Amino acid sequence: MITVLTGGTGGAKFVDGLRQVVPPENLTIIVNTGDDLRWWGLYVSPDLDSITYMLAGKLSPERGWGVQGDTFLCLRAMEQLGQPTWFHAGDRDLATHIFRTQLLAGGKTLSAATAEIAARFGIKARILPMSDSRVETRVLTPAGDLSFEEYFVQRHYQDPVQSVRFAGASEAVPAPGVTEAIRSAELVLLAPSNPVTSIAPILAIPGIRQALSESRARIAAVSPIVGRTAVTGPAGALLAAQGFAVSIKGVADFYHDFLDLLVVDASDALAAQELLETGLAKAGMQVHCTTTVMRKNEDRVALARSVLQATTQSRLRKDVRERA
Amino acid sequence: MITVLTGGTGGAKFVDGLRQVVPPENLTIIVNTGDDLRWWGLYVSPDLDSITYMLAGKLSPERGWGVQGDTFLCLRAMEQLGQPTWFHAGDRDLATHIFRTQLLAGGKTLSAATAEIAARFGIKARILPMSDSRVETRVLTPAGDLSFEEYFVQRHYQDPVQSVRFAGASEAVPAPGVTEAIRSAELVLLAPSNPVTSIAPILAIPGIRQALSESRARIAAVSPIVGRTAVTGPAGALLAAQGFAVSIKGVADFYHDFLDLLVVDASDALAAQELLETGLAKAGMQVHCTTTVMRKNEDRVALARSVLQATTQSRLRKDVRERA
Repeated sequence: MITVLTGGTGGAKFVDGLRQVVPPENLTIIVNTGDDLRWWGLYVSPDLDSITYMLAGKLSPERGWGVQGDTFLCLRAMEQLGQPTWFHAGDRDLATHIFRTQLLAGGKTLSAATAEIAARFGIKARILPMSDSRVETRVLTPAGDLSFEEYFVQRHYQDPVQSVRFAGASEAVPAPGVTEAIRSAELVLLAPSNPVTSIAPILAIPGIRQALSESRARIAAVSPIVGRTAVTGPAGALLAAQGFAVSIKGVADFYHDFLDLLVVDASDALAAQELLETGLAKAGMQVHCTTTVMRKNEDRVALARSVLQATTQSRLRKDVRERA
Repeated sequence: MITVLTGGTGGAKFVDGLRQVVPPENLTIIVNTGDDLRWWGLYVSPDLDSITYMLAGKLSPERGWGVQGDTFLCLRAMEQLGQPTWFHAGDRDLATHIFRTQLLAGGKTLSAATAEIAARFGIKARILPMSDSRVETRVLTPAGDLSFEEYFVQRHYQDPVQSVRFAGASEAVPAPGVTEAIRSAELVLLAPSNPVTSIAPILAIPGIRQALSESRARIAAVSPIVGRTAVTGPAGALLAAQGFAVSIKGVADFYHDFLDLLVVDASDALAAQELLETGLAKAGMQVHCTTTVMRKNEDRVALARSVLQATTQSRLRKDVRERA
């Protein structure tokens, strides 16, 4: 059994590789919901949608979000009605938002709604939101205290980031099955998603970090940083704003307390060598070099295979520590 | 000032003719909301939408409802999610439903939401829902107690009708401006809409029938019945179910207590002659024959012109009665 912690775009590609090399029934995907928003009155969960569409084979490969081949006629009509249109909801995509909103209005939890939507899409992997409680990623910038989607989509992540917080996290509880899936898995994988705004919201839910620390699973992360920049998006700027190096070292530090294996791009072989000379390696964290940048489907499959192989060969850091 | 009482399809055509021969600022359109429904959790008002789209020049001429040239991709996606799709909401049409639902959720009344939507569409005529209270037209059939849309759209008005009622009407109040628009108008027109399920719900709101009776306006209705059948839809079956003749006589009887002038199709000239020999004519109701079937835009304009001319020439029935 494999449990994956993930955000949307980069994470979805990684999950797509995994589902091609592992029976989907063996996959539990724990998804960031810190980016969720009410849009036109509808409950939208961008990362749950990306993962759901990807697993259903419907994610737009060009956009990396939304439904393949979708149209935007409702959006244009909303524009004519003077409504905001910076968040792009496609016509087919809207069906998911409308259906989820209805399920929630009918009293279902977000995890129950997520399971129902996944079932309707014929998805065999298990998709879990990180929490049924509302946790909102807030990005403080000179322009104001923004929601993640305001920062990321509306303002194109151009604002300098002063701090990031997860409003509601301290009172939130993990969704049913989340800590169990972490504790009972043989392998826990952190997708190459933005550590600060995709993975950290999940880790901010009380109980999840502890479950990772206490799990007997091997825990591996794929670095979303290659060289000195993020493969996509604002992960670099956000890591720097949090005081972390924009490098595989920064990612290793970010996950320092529970990671057994960091998977980095082959182009970072030298940095990986340096990383192995730090205290992290002494504490038992291992590093695996492979091609992590996923341009084509073959890259996704190859990365999934490589990560699985490396984790099979890697030791559990806990054992290293216990033996030391 | 002209006030029109109307439903959707046939009424929208009539209103379209009127707006071409009268300054739209002089028109107040009071619209049936007995067909309103929650669809996919969204508040949908079929008749308000038809009137709004018509006045905005966006009503689909082929369908007679919804937005011209609309697509149905969200609907198809909802079908794939296993959701009901018998009520057809187009992608552009959805924007109106989503926007109205949001306005209502934000605490606006239906009439305030209607005014805001009309303003965004650039409509100069005043559109008023009959009431801000929820009044639901229920059609009792051997198949069950159906909402109007279930009876009309889902089941194609094939069920024998046992009775029609307007749930909530007795506790409802007319929307702000409704009785004033009836009392202060020079002319009140009943569109050639279904008397039983488009006009009767409006008349069922306490205070509206009285406003019609007491208004100094001339009151004219265009018959939706030509010969022995309705021009479109189930008006014939519904009139019969209510014990009215399916003829211009049935329509005259339906509006007997306040109508000054009944406008009927030229093909009903003989029936009109017979009608004039009844007690209704003695009570002051007049009949005007013209072409009422609207196939082309010219027909709409010609009907509007003919009705306006006839009402100018007709006497007030109240005066006839008072003089008698």
